[in-house]
Amino acid sequence: MEKRVEAIADMNVDFAQWYTDVVRKAELAEYAETGGCIIYKPYGYAIWELVQAALDKRFKETGHENVYMPMLIPESLLQKEADHIEGFAPEVAWVTHGGAEKLQERMCIRPTSETLFCSFYANDIQSYRDLPRLYNQWCSVMRWEKTTRPFLRGREFLWQEGHTAHATAEESLEEALKMLDVYCEVSENVLAMPYIKGQKTEREKFAGALKTFTFESLMHDGKALQSGTSHDFGDGFARAFDIKYLDKDNKQQYVHQASWGVSTRLLGAIIMVHGDNNGLVLPPPVAPIQVIIVPVAAHKAGVCEKAEELRARLSKISRCKLDNSDKKPGWKFAEYEMKGVPIRLEIGPKDIEQNQCVLARRDTGEKITASLDNLEQTISDTLQNINQNMYDKAKARLESNTFTATDLPALKNILDTTPGFVKAMWCGDDACEVRVKEEATATSRCMPFEQEKISSTCFVCGKPADKMVVWGRSY
Amino acid sequence: MEKRVEAIADMNVDFAQWYTDVVRKAELAEYAETGGCIIYKPYGYAIWELVQAALDKRFKETGHENVYMPMLIPESLLQKEADHIEGFAPEVAWVTHGGAEKLQERMCIRPTSETLFCSFYANDIQSYRDLPRLYNQWCSVMRWEKTTRPFLRGREFLWQEGHTAHATAEESLEEALKMLDVYCEVSENVLAMPYIKGQKTEREKFAGALKTFTFESLMHDGKALQSGTSHDFGDGFARAFDIKYLDKDNKQQYVHQASWGVSTRLLGAIIMVHGDNNGLVLPPPVAPIQVIIVPVAAHKAGVCEKAEELRARLSKISRCKLDNSDKKPGWKFAEYEMKGVPIRLEIGPKDIEQNQCVLARRDTGEKITASLDNLEQTISDTLQNINQNMYDKAKARLESNTFTATDLPALKNILDTTPGFVKAMWCGDDACEVRVKEEATATSRCMPFEQEKISSTCFVCGKPADKMVVWGRSY
Repeated sequence: MEKRVEAIADMNVDFAQWYTDVVRKAELAEYAETGGCIIYKPYGYAIWELVQAALDKRFKETGHENVYMPMLIPESLLQKEADHIEGFAPEVAWVTHGGAEKLQERMCIRPTSETLFCSFYANDIQSYRDLPRLYNQWCSVMRWEKTTRPFLRGREFLWQEGHTAHATAEESLEEALKMLDVYCEVSENVLAMPYIKGQKTEREKFAGALKTFTFESLMHDGKALQSGTSHDFGDGFARAFDIKYLDKDNKQQYVHQASWGVSTRLLGAIIMVHGDNNGLVLPPPVAPIQVIIVPVAAHKAGVCEKAEELRARLSKISRCKLDNSDKKPGWKFAEYEMKGVPIRLEIGPKDIEQNQCVLARRDTGEKITASLDNLEQTISDTLQNINQNMYDKAKARLESNTFTATDLPALKNILDTTPGFVKAMWCGDDACEVRVKEEATATSRCMPFEQEKISSTCFVCGKPADKMVVWGRSY
Repeated sequence: MEKRVEAIADMNVDFAQWYTDVVRKAELAEYAETGGCIIYKPYGYAIWELVQAALDKRFKETGHENVYMPMLIPESLLQKEADHIEGFAPEVAWVTHGGAEKLQERMCIRPTSETLFCSFYANDIQSYRDLPRLYNQWCSVMRWEKTTRPFLRGREFLWQEGHTAHATAEESLEEALKMLDVYCEVSENVLAMPYIKGQKTEREKFAGALKTFTFESLMHDGKALQSGTSHDFGDGFARAFDIKYLDKDNKQQYVHQASWGVSTRLLGAIIMVHGDNNGLVLPPPVAPIQVIIVPVAAHKAGVCEKAEELRARLSKISRCKLDNSDKKPGWKFAEYEMKGVPIRLEIGPKDIEQNQCVLARRDTGEKITASLDNLEQTISDTLQNINQNMYDKAKARLESNTFTATDLPALKNILDTTPGFVKAMWCGDDACEVRVKEEATATSRCMPFEQEKISSTCFVCGKPADKMVVWGRSY
């Protein structure tokens, strides 16, 4: 699509600047006076509310219940699981004083809440009858990052974290896989975002997990984004926190646990998967405004009345807004394109005469003349069509930007020239993974569930290899 | 109602213990390992979600938008408004380290977010066209309290805080009064909770506010609870933070601001206004389960099937749950009474024969035989009736526990013997208010909007007085 606005950088020239420009010009977020943190402005927060609602509905449908844990974790509690503290201690914010008094024990602001859930479950779970426990919480967490970017990496971000406890190893694994599927279904149907799903390598897995699963999305610039993860903890945390239950045979058993989370990072993904040189492009299910009505020649008799009539009609089936401000139509066109509104409805005197209106699609730029009869149906169909088209387009891009490599120089060359996902066989040796990081500044994104045989040897060391890994440079 | 459970203290003997017992036995919350904080368990959190939804809908209907500000406030920012820092500095939690590094400037976890909103508005608002700004945020805040009680007073609590900016002094005052009305409407129609509304005295107003408005509820033990407040800031914060706009005549003007908030304290109010010796009593609009179906003689042919059929029917018009576990009906009766479920539906073989069921009302204990024909209508009507009855009962209690006094010993005597609200005339002198606190351990709750003339002299000093104040002992 032609670049019609001067307000933002060209995404093909300076993608990073384009991203920052879109975040600010679409009024999604603003930098805060608190270093490394952002302010979620109404439009950005409204998108998050829609993402939340879509997820929360599915969490509840799969039997999960929401709870709320404290935001502070005593240091001794954070330290109970060795890998976990090692992973998180370097990046937590420490509270040392309450009012004028120094605390006896310092506490960190939660970077994630495994330790709090575990400490709760240790008392709460007694018998097999108490299992499974399927809890989730919506909250903000804090990680003291050095470099930050709105939505993608920040000291504070909003997220949900599911924490569940089960009787058996099979069940905790099943839970981790099930919730990954829930995320993937939302990614596809709600966010119109294709993905590759699989398991993280040992090096990339979550601090304290047995297995970490992920769905990875491909941004417009060919970089990967870890969009959400689920973890099978086995009984590791249960042993560290002594979470036991009495089974049917009256024997003490450790529980098995899983956790899973997605965050406001998904907003960054939406921007970078779908956006274009005119700004944001929103998938209709998470667009705060799905249809913007712009009257043309609004001073002419009957135009405003008709526009208001259409707003009233369409509000019953969509999130519809009428902009009857005195700004010029051209300004309005650019403004709502920047904000990624899926459909712009133009209505003027000639349209009214002919009982029609013009629909402009944000995803394709296409303009359609639509009859005012049955307009509800046309709008519903178009919104659905837009979502499907956005998914198909992104999917085609992901596919055409997924490559294969059989040696490390080839992989590096691909990432240097045509960035994307690179499939390559890996022997399973951590040293090879380290070499990829050092020599190609790429990381393993995941070992996809859908395996292919690219070659029979490790692309790094040349030893026999039967595991295909997807590699990439990532946010 | 007869006290049928041993699990909780008698509310007439030890109200504080009764409260704690209900919080735990109804599975609303649990103490956390983090001192002074609680864990919101699924049932407690579900009530909060319903309260949130009722409020959020009204905030949006009145033109407000949700945003999210950082949870940390740099010390220099907190200090910008003199009264505000004086009020909050003694009770904030300080973050001093990020990972291993000491911060250049320490930051506090927000006790409230006026300073963050003001710092944002100072850049965001330029012209009269930007006004009003009507923002709200849902978040948790932290105040380092010494003594805590679940929901009523805790180091961390969940709340919403509205922060708005307006062109004129009239508008910010209007906003503060309007949002108090929104709260009061929710209190009455959603929480079935009567209140007295009015303005706080200078001594009791919010740190930095020009005027604070409040709605005060009366708990079962005769103590007052400040259930929510709204504040008119005038241009005080605008001057401290330099928030100006260019008016229509191209002149720089300070904005006028308001803020308003309610918190999970409302859960404490629900417990203490409606609860009885069998546990929680929930107003139907915020009951996570509105109808609990308990099959009787469930082993008999057709009972489980009929119970499931009723569940499917009633789920369409209410939050309905069927308990077909193998626990005894008596256990189930007590359990769901403890949890305050408004209607228990009992269905057994004889009921089925006669095409009827038994409905037991939690608010009155009354049992009604209802035809299975038209059951949806009966349930809807009963839920509505329960809500009205709960409000009427609480209102009658508030009225019969509101007294008048014409001198300080009389007020003290009332509060010592028949605690409740006491109306008394006040000269407006702060010294008199201090004396009431010192000699009767009571505080001014508010100067009600609906004034009455109890006497013509101040009940403390005897000087002429024309302001009626409601006094009480409070949580």
